[in-house]
Order: sequence, then structure tokens, then C-alpha cells
Amino acid sequence: MSDSPSQPAGRTGAEALVQTFVDAGVRVCFTNPGTSEMHFVAALDTNPQMRCVLGLFEGVVTGAADGYGRMAGTPAATLLHLGPGLGNGLANLHNAKKARTPVVNVVGDHATYHRKYDAPLTSDVEAIARPVSGWVKAAASADTVAADGAAAIQAALAPPGQVATLILPADTAWDTTTAPIPAPLPRLGPPPIDGERVQSAARALASGEPCVLLINGVLTEARVQAAARIAAATGARLVTDTFVPRMRRGAGLPAPLRLPYFGEQAAEMLAGTRHIILLGTQAPVTFFAYPGKPYWLTPEGCTLHEVAGRDGDLDGALDALGQAVGAGGKAAPLAAADRPALPSGKLDARAIGAAVGHLLPENAVVVDEGGTSGHGTVMGTRGAPAHDWLQLTGGSIGYALPTATGAAIAAPGRRVLCLQGDGGGMYTVQALWTQARERLDITTVIFANRRYSILQVEFGRVGAHAPGPKAMSMLELTNPTIDWVGMARSMGVTAWRADSAESFNKALAASFAQPGPSLIEALI
Amino acid sequence: MSDSPSQPAGRTGAEALVQTFVDAGVRVCFTNPGTSEMHFVAALDTNPQMRCVLGLFEGVVTGAADGYGRMAGTPAATLLHLGPGLGNGLANLHNAKKARTPVVNVVGDHATYHRKYDAPLTSDVEAIARPVSGWVKAAASADTVAADGAAAIQAALAPPGQVATLILPADTAWDTTTAPIPAPLPRLGPPPIDGERVQSAARALASGEPCVLLINGVLTEARVQAAARIAAATGARLVTDTFVPRMRRGAGLPAPLRLPYFGEQAAEMLAGTRHIILLGTQAPVTFFAYPGKPYWLTPEGCTLHEVAGRDGDLDGALDALGQAVGAGGKAAPLAAADRPALPSGKLDARAIGAAVGHLLPENAVVVDEGGTSGHGTVMGTRGAPAHDWLQLTGGSIGYALPTATGAAIAAPGRRVLCLQGDGGGMYTVQALWTQARERLDITTVIFANRRYSILQVEFGRVGAHAPGPKAMSMLELTNPTIDWVGMARSMGVTAWRADSAESFNKALAASFAQPGPSLIEALI
Repeated sequence: MSDSPSQPAGRTGAEALVQTFVDAGVRVCFTNPGTSEMHFVAALDTNPQMRCVLGLFEGVVTGAADGYGRMAGTPAATLLHLGPGLGNGLANLHNAKKARTPVVNVVGDHATYHRKYDAPLTSDVEAIARPVSGWVKAAASADTVAADGAAAIQAALAPPGQVATLILPADTAWDTTTAPIPAPLPRLGPPPIDGERVQSAARALASGEPCVLLINGVLTEARVQAAARIAAATGARLVTDTFVPRMRRGAGLPAPLRLPYFGEQAAEMLAGTRHIILLGTQAPVTFFAYPGKPYWLTPEGCTLHEVAGRDGDLDGALDALGQAVGAGGKAAPLAAADRPALPSGKLDARAIGAAVGHLLPENAVVVDEGGTSGHGTVMGTRGAPAHDWLQLTGGSIGYALPTATGAAIAAPGRRVLCLQGDGGGMYTVQALWTQARERLDITTVIFANRRYSILQVEFGRVGAHAPGPKAMSMLELTNPTIDWVGMARSMGVTAWRADSAESFNKALAASFAQPGPSLIEALI
Repeated sequence: MSDSPSQPAGRTGAEALVQTFVDAGVRVCFTNPGTSEMHFVAALDTNPQMRCVLGLFEGVVTGAADGYGRMAGTPAATLLHLGPGLGNGLANLHNAKKARTPVVNVVGDHATYHRKYDAPLTSDVEAIARPVSGWVKAAASADTVAADGAAAIQAALAPPGQVATLILPADTAWDTTTAPIPAPLPRLGPPPIDGERVQSAARALASGEPCVLLINGVLTEARVQAAARIAAATGARLVTDTFVPRMRRGAGLPAPLRLPYFGEQAAEMLAGTRHIILLGTQAPVTFFAYPGKPYWLTPEGCTLHEVAGRDGDLDGALDALGQAVGAGGKAAPLAAADRPALPSGKLDARAIGAAVGHLLPENAVVVDEGGTSGHGTVMGTRGAPAHDWLQLTGGSIGYALPTATGAAIAAPGRRVLCLQGDGGGMYTVQALWTQARERLDITTVIFANRRYSILQVEFGRVGAHAPGPKAMSMLELTNPTIDWVGMARSMGVTAWRADSAESFNKALAASFAQPGPSLIEALI
């Protein structure tokens, strides 16, 4: 409680809300505000404990909140302008929802008494919020808005984390209140572990039949080590989902397998498995269905053991299962320190991966939206110094530039490497401006293959005929090509173009060596 | 019906849908597709009558469809990738909804049998669509999808026009069907005019008491002339809403008043009015509410006469009311041809308006998101050659660059002038790439005042204290400033920077003289 006798008798609802956020540990607000949010902005002004970061588009704002939440484990606030501002941020909130990232959205709305008049900006904010939010509430008055804010933070932190959206009608922000600032609400606990399921999974792991531990969630070092010890003790294979919100990896860490994106390859990896133990995840399915191709990836005759589902207690599951199988006696195999040599000659995804593996700074954060080009860097960094790897959890492109922005704010002093396909990069390119303004230590690599490469693969896979010129032109980023160096510089970000391994090596070393953001357009 | 004996026995659902669209006159598809839309893309490939335009972000796609629909009066299709793709397009669909623009969205989704597995891209597409759509349906099978498409077009064209969203699960696009292509459905008529209301409005107009005709809608020359004749015959003042989807104006046309944005000024304009006749609009209210300020703009003692509401029959209302008051006998006053002199010296909003007024080509289309800087051009073009003026109907910034793109495709041979504040311009800047790719004759003027100028005004108006440095930094586009010339060139668009009236005049003349898109960064 920061209320005190020296406090003035009344404060605005917005001031009460901001103080509630600060008291509960929410210290960063990503925003693109409008008129209905001006009192909240004014309240930020008077509260030195809240950092305020402007994005020039709401997809930047919400993606940054996702990156912040994944790294910090506590939510950032967003401040968005009515239904359309929330709409602009919806895609990256979808990704945050799928990542189970804690986020607290504050969405301004018309004054309560003005909503019924259907002014130009009137929309059903709650209906727009609900598909991406685990918790939604519209504040009713300045007297109750701070309590609503405390509830929103509690909801956002409900394990494993979720998106909570508080709608803030303008009058609930500008009216004054003498209600005390609420104390932070206690953190909710995770759902209980079912001991029967733990025992059943332990029996399967002891059966001698082929087992897979399938894991998802924020895979901290402790979690990935605990899972690897269970695998080592039982002979099960440790596999992560294709897309994981965050994983600690590199030299000295376990190296789980990754479930492949394409169903045929995923099916091959899982073939013969008799038991899949679900740890923070669900039964594996393909990303998309394709005509006549398998999509349910659990092999016939294989039993699923859900010890912890997507919203389950991953730590509790790892503890209980580890005890049940007597894990810890046998050390898990760890990746050796092993940096590849600097590449030379042709620049391609493999060469980029080798250069990154050779040069990656200690304790980096890698944000991966490399699409078809990212895999080279996944391979090249297996033995690089330990780092965190963030992935596109909801399939909605345009996440990496914003998420890198938020991750850099959550992890000062660490180099953030953003691997960005050119298609996805154009979605939320405005993030570069925020990176420049906040002087964030981010290296962005644009894989400039000038196409939606994955779609050229998928076109054939879905069983469509070979693309003709009209279809192909929808899958290509040519005519004109995008000048990423000019684009970055127009927003204040240093940039280089690389068309060979040598020029890429040089640019990457320069980028890692200089503070602030910089970008490399890699012509591949 | 384009079905014929030579047609193969089966076609994909996507092919049937595209043929249905073409038969019903939908000839342009704006898109950013993904895997689940590949069969629709393939179907576009084989149908030469459908033009296909790629946007690098869905806000470009939906804004272009809004601009196209406002100019063409018939819908364009959009093709969007599941819930997140639709989400990215939501803000400009909100603007289209408020404009009553006919738009047909096709939103791909997972195959019907795959939806239940909660794959990364799974979302509630229907829930995301509903807040911006007057009509929503999810296709159930390839056999029925073409009929759904015909119904979507009929819904989009229901007067005065609306957003219709058809959700296309992947299997309904890729399965084959032998169902015939449905004939276009008949256009629905407008709701009936209430003769009592017409008579009541006519009596008010004949009463000698001060009357205002308040009008909104796509104000074609015929409509604005009809309204002006009623005003001339009765002595009523003709006033448009603050934001109108499209209006014909300039030399030789009536010059209605425009309801001011700020409530105090709007109240002043309406003071003393005893009767407001609503023609395609609703009771006037302020854009936002402000603490302690008026928001309901109908003066006390003034009677509202709704002859046609927002979704009413504007043509029928103008006809009936014109007959009832005997309009036509007295000619309406028309704006004289009057181009301002070319400005010199300091570059500001007024100078820009004079240059535009001096140089505007015949029959131009002006797309106005000039914000606080646009008014100078409104003034400077009052006597310019007749042109169409499009405004931001839903208050969601980032509409003008995309809407200009779609308007240029709907109106080939006409120069499109896009007046764009720098704040809104950054929202959907990717539109410039589509303008370059499609070689559209668009002149974009960026009002580079490097701030959210309207918010600096609104900050004080809402009664917040004077903004401190943190609040002010949320309202300024500085640190770094944006290099709009570099930004435009990075996407293949010719660009100039102007810092004086003389350099602006020169750049504007050059832009109007050259085919294709170009951009002027006006430092004001």
C-alpha cells in the first residue's frame, strides 16, 4: 500500500490505476495512446516508477509486451486506443495467448455515458478483446478501477500466465476518487497435479516401451534440466513442441529434439512411440491439415499421458514425475561448447547460422521468426554460449521485431538477436523506430529472400496445381524489392547489406560490438 | 450463370467461389494469403477476370477494399489468413463499417475437422469478425460455399452497404464439387421511407423556424445537388457530418457546411436551430466526451426529424423531401471556379492547401487523413475543379495510404491525392509498396509535423494537467525523426522533401505530372 496520510484527498481513477500497477510490480507500459487515454498518460507522467514506451503501431505495442512478459515473467501493461487500437494489436496478443505470456492490456473507451451514441470510434471493445484474453472486464467507475487493475494483474499472472484486458472508459480515468490504493492480490496457484497420472506416466516410463516426453512452456534452465534428467533416468526421448515461447539452450545445456513442422517428418520422429508424456502441452497435431495427409500425430497404439496440460503445473509435473522415476541419479547429456568456424563464400541460411554460432555473445536472447531460413541458425548455435531462444507460438507473423523490442527492455545488458524473414518483417516494421528511440541493444538479421518462401512450399503441399504467374506474384516480395537498409535508416537504425558470407560476418561482428539497434539485410 | 456443358464435372470449392464472385461483378481481390488460403489463390490464378493485389500487411488489404468500395459502389473481395490476419485488418474494417462501404471478406480457417485441436493458429474467427461485420458465415462444405459467396455479396450490397465476412475452412476450399455456380442474387432494396416523417420534416422546413439539413453517406453529385436544392427552396442550412465517406465538391458544386470536430464549435454552428432534418445520419454528438463539456449537440428545444437514418434510404429521402417542399424551383448556390495563387515563403498547412488548390488536376480523388493539418487543403480546394473527397469515417488512423491505394484501383485515369499526417502514415506505411507494385497514380503528401498534434490539443481539452516530459514524449514523433523520403524510396516510391512553399510547389507539380506513385515529405 502506497497510500499515506500525505496523499491528497482525491486522485483520478487513472492515477489510482497506475499506482496499483506500480505497487504490484508492473513497471513498463507499452503504448500508442489516443484522446480517451490522455488521463492515463498524464498519470504515467507523475509516476517515476513506470517506464513508458511508445510504439508507432499497436502490433508493436502488444508484441513488445509479449517479449517483455516472456523474459521477465511479470506482465508489462499496454495502453491501447479503443476497439481499433486493440484490433491493431490483436495478432500479437494471439501469439502471447498461445505463449501463455502474462500481459495486462488497458484499453481506453468512450466515457460510459457516451458509448450509446455510436460515435465514429464506438465499437464493442469487449467483444474484440475476448478472443485473445483469458480475463476481460470493463471498469465501472473511478472508485473501483484500481481494484479492477489489481484483479487484472492477478489474472495475468495466473499460472502459467495469460492475457488480461481491462477496458477503461474515459470517465473512470478522469473522475476523482478517494478509494485507497488496493494492495497487490496474492498470486493464484497452479491447478493440482493428479497423482494417478504421475504414477501412470511413471509406469509407462519404466515399462521399457519407447516413450517420448513432450514438453512446452517457458523452458528455463531448471525446467529443461529437470526434464532431461527424467529422460536420462528412463531412456525416454525428450522432445519439445515445434514452437516454444522460450527455451534455455546452448553449451552446457540439454539439447531436446524439436518436433518438426511438417507432419510427415513429425510422424517419422514419433513412429513406434508407445507412450507420449505431456508436460505443459497437449496431444501433438500438425500446424495445418493438408488434403489426404495425416494431422493427428499420436501413433496408433500409443498412449497419451497428460501429467500437465497447456495450462497445467509444469514445475509440479517435473518434480512429481522426477521423484516417481528416481531421476537425478543419471546425469543428462549436455551440449558441448562448440562454435562453428566463420563461413566464407556464398551467403545462405547455413552460412548465417555458422556466423551467428561463431559470434553470438554470452547470454544472448534470440527471437526467431526466420521462417524457412531460421533453421541454419538453430543448427549453428547448438554449442554456442548459453542463450534464450524465443519462437513464434501463435503462427501470426510480424512478432519478432516487436517481441525483440520488449525482450530487450526486460533484459538490459544482454544482446538480443532478432532473426526475421522479410515477409514477417514488413508486418510490424515500425518496431525499428522504437528500438532506435529506446537505444536497445538489438541486432536484426533480415533474411531477404524476397518471397513468402514457406507459402511457395505450402502451395504444393496443399495439393494446389503449380502456381501460375498470378498466384506466384502473391507469394513474392519483388517488383519492387524492398531496400531494408534504407528502410532501417529512415527510422534511425544503423544498417548494412550483406551479399556474401564475408560481408555478413563483418556486419554481424560490427552489430554485436556497437550499442543500440542495428540491422543486416542478408541477401540469400 | 457461367456453368456450361464444357465445364469439367468437378471444381474445387475455391474455384466455385471465385467464379461466383466474378459473375456477381466482384473483380478485385486484395490479399495477404497464407497456407489455408492457397486453394483460393490457385483459383484466382485460373480466372483472368479477377485482379489480385498483394498487400504486405492486412491493414493495407482492408483499407484498400474500403477505398475501392467507396469509389466503385461495388465490393472488392479481401482474402485474409485466419483470425490473426483478420485481426490485422480489423481497424480499417471498422472504418469501412462506419462508412457503410460494401466489402466482402474471405477469411481462411483450419479445415473443419482440424479446428478442434487448438493448433497455434486456431482462434475464434467468427468472434473476431462479428464486431466489424454486418453479415458473418462460416462455409460448411465445398458444395455450399459458392452459394454462401453469393449471399455474402448480396449482404455487402444491402443498402447503403456493409462489411460481409465469409469464413472459408481449408477443406471447403480444396474439396471438389459439382454444384452449379449460383446466379448472382438480386439486390436488396433500401428500407421504406416513412411518409409521415417526410411530411413532418417538410412542415418544419416550411415553418420559417431555423432548420438544418444534416447529411451523411456517399454524397455523389446527384445527392449533394438534391440536398442543396431542398436547402435553397426552404432556407435551411445544409450541413454534413464531420466525417463523410465520400463527397463530390469543388467548382460548380454546392458547398455544404461541415459540422466542426470540436463540440463547442459544433454547438455554436447549431445554436438557435429549431429543427434538424436527418438525411442518412443520426443525431449529432461529439466525437469524444470531455469532462464537464457538452456532448449532445442537438440544441435545447430543437426537434430531430429522422427522414433517413444511417442505414436509411438517402435517395428516397431526398426525392420525397424534395417533392414535399417543392425543391427545384430555386437554384442552389454553387462554388465558383477559383484557384488560389501559388504560395511562397514558409511552408505550413495553409500554404500546402493553396498549392493543392492551384495545381489539383481535374476530377481528382482526395483521401484525407491530414488530421490537424488537413484543413488548409479543405479551404484551398473549395473552388478547384470538381473532385471527390474521402474522409476518416471511423476515427481509426492509418486509413489514408491504404484507402488511396484501393481508390486508385477503382478509379483508373484519375489522380489520387493522399493527405496523410505522419502519425497515421506510420500505421500502414506498407501501402506504399503496393502503390509502387501496381503503378498507381497516387500523390501522397506527408504532413511531417513530427507529432500526434491532435493529442497535444486533446491533452489539454480532456482536463489533464499540462503534459510533462514523459507524457509529451508519448505525443511526439521525434528522437529519432522519421525520414519519409528514405522510407518511400525503400519501397520503390519516388519522393521529395519540401521545407518551403516553393520547394513544395515544385514537388507537387512534378508528382502530378508523373505517372505512378510519389510522395512529398512536407516539413511543417
